[in-house]
Amino acid sequence: MTTDPHMLDDAARDLLFRAARTHYAWQDRPVPDTRLEELYDLLKWGPTSANCCPARFVFIRTLEGKEKLKPALSPGNVETTMTAPVTCIVAHDRHFFDRLPRLFPQAEVAGWFAGNEALARETAFRNGTLQGAYLILAARAVGLDAGPMSGFDNARVDQAFFAGTDWTSNFLVNLGYGTPGVPPRGPRLGFDEACRLE
Amino acid sequence: MTTDPHMLDDAARDLLFRAARTHYAWQDRPVPDTRLEELYDLLKWGPTSANCCPARFVFIRTLEGKEKLKPALSPGNVETTMTAPVTCIVAHDRHFFDRLPRLFPQAEVAGWFAGNEALARETAFRNGTLQGAYLILAARAVGLDAGPMSGFDNARVDQAFFAGTDWTSNFLVNLGYGTPGVPPRGPRLGFDEACRLE
Repeated sequence: MTTDPHMLDDAARDLLFRAARTHYAWQDRPVPDTRLEELYDLLKWGPTSANCCPARFVFIRTLEGKEKLKPALSPGNVETTMTAPVTCIVAHDRHFFDRLPRLFPQAEVAGWFAGNEALARETAFRNGTLQGAYLILAARAVGLDAGPMSGFDNARVDQAFFAGTDWTSNFLVNLGYGTPGVPPRGPRLGFDEACRLE
Repeated sequence: MTTDPHMLDDAARDLLFRAARTHYAWQDRPVPDTRLEELYDLLKWGPTSANCCPARFVFIRTLEGKEKLKPALSPGNVETTMTAPVTCIVAHDRHFFDRLPRLFPQAEVAGWFAGNEALARETAFRNGTLQGAYLILAARAVGLDAGPMSGFDNARVDQAFFAGTDWTSNFLVNLGYGTPGVPPRGPRLGFDEACRLE
């Protein structure tokens, strides 16, 4: 397996999936902005429907930014978020389709969404979430640990960060270098519980 | 970079993100069921909120299964789907929270969802979609090519495959070994367009 260039070797599978863990406690080690650019330059290649790329990412590194976020957090997520070197708001642009003529020039698809708000909203949420998952795995790929969270008040985040724009929050991901000693991981469903063969 | 065990090397970054492409045309080469089990055993480790693991996966390999799916497909997705060795319906279980006492025993969280259908629906869609993204990247990790699609009629798929159950379809992913010669890839948004630093 480790010599097949068309597959990930065991070490890479461990890094991304099998040994990776969600982190809540962080080393006092900064994440340079260049690492965030490297992260985006990797995750951006993940596929989206008609290459619509609706996700938007706000990387909060300053105390001012964290204080703006703090009132929206669930109590259990305050300490981990305030101590993380970076907190990313995974958001999406409700008007993502304005960019489709450039992102997907091979067909006129912007009209699918401009006249159908429910389809636009579902497409932005689904594909923005896919890109949020690419962010989590790409963070691990560039050496960062991730702590994704949905325990916060989306409306308050939108008011604090996105007032007057078409961006809306989806979930949060703390980023940094986790401390050792995370508790045992939770179980997963077996193949026969989660999958069907037809 | 290639010698740091806490990062993916360039070849792995290419395999998962930078050189990977969505495929529509397939080699006549089967995908054994053991590969699908390997795929699930990798993707299942990706994180979800409170380890809720709402995604369910139907791997369609037979002609009977493909014929059941065919009437729900958009015309442009029929040929690629009928010729793919496997088509996966990425679905989620609307009653995912019934399993939370086992998946997340450290706190009583099933009640958050049992009494709040909107929260349950949003949580299942968001986290099921994250797991769908893990499927796409894990497919590449185990040597498969992926062709994700949302061009189909979800209600018809649910009627054909999930009648009488709590499962509902999200999107489709063709799986197999793609043929060479995919067209040039679409552009992506620049860091300054998709990201903000605060």
